[in-house]
Amino acid sequence: VSGAEIRVVDLAAAFGGFADHWSPRIAGDVNDCQVRLAKLLGEFVWHRHDAEDELFLVVKGRLRMRFRDRDDALVGPGQFLIVPRGVEHLPVAEEEVHVVLVEPRSTLHTGDVVAERAVREFARI
Amino acid sequence: VSGAEIRVVDLAAAFGGFADHWSPRIAGDVNDCQVRLAKLLGEFVWHRHDAEDELFLVVKGRLRMRFRDRDDALVGPGQFLIVPRGVEHLPVAEEEVHVVLVEPRSTLHTGDVVAERAVREFARI
Repeated sequence: VSGAEIRVVDLAAAFGGFADHWSPRIAGDVNDCQVRLAKLLGEFVWHRHDAEDELFLVVKGRLRMRFRDRDDALVGPGQFLIVPRGVEHLPVAEEEVHVVLVEPRSTLHTGDVVAERAVREFARI
Repeated sequence: VSGAEIRVVDLAAAFGGFADHWSPRIAGDVNDCQVRLAKLLGEFVWHRHDAEDELFLVVKGRLRMRFRDRDDALVGPGQFLIVPRGVEHLPVAEEEVHVVLVEPRSTLHTGDVVAERAVREFARI
């Protein structure tokens, strides 16, 4: 793999490079997963991923994750949460949240819900 | 997946819970990968992973990653680096480094090198 690009990604700089919400940027590929960066504000849509776990690592702000069958989880800076496959969830950002996602390359961010808000091609930073 | 454990992991608290170096703790499972937390100090061993990419996200300290065929990469807090499969690397921590790793469950941390320092069973936090 000589010659393969190996770069250091600075999260603050990368988040400084885009402004739109609910539109993940691809920041790297690791095995079958991608590292994606997203800015969240407001309420997303209820959805689930039938075969994919999704990691949310919060860098800024506080993410509220709502579930159908249990209490909300609050995820602050320096904290992460893994939503297992099959679990319906609703991300809510009452303030702007910067989040690092680790999820399979195949994951559509709205999961089973083909929402108006689904972005099918993410830009690469 | 009703009833599956979903928990918020606080990185600072988790790193506060162990002290030994080069002995990753498992902090979560996401698809075929694990999230592992490690404290590094000093020089590890040259190794590579033939079929596995490895993500290093630095939370504290500055990690120097040495390569055989290119300049060192310096990874500071809030920065990450992905070492692609097949690339020989040597992590060096001149000061204590706290790092979040994302790598396949199958990854032995010393890669192709079965070193004295290889820990084969990681504890779960």
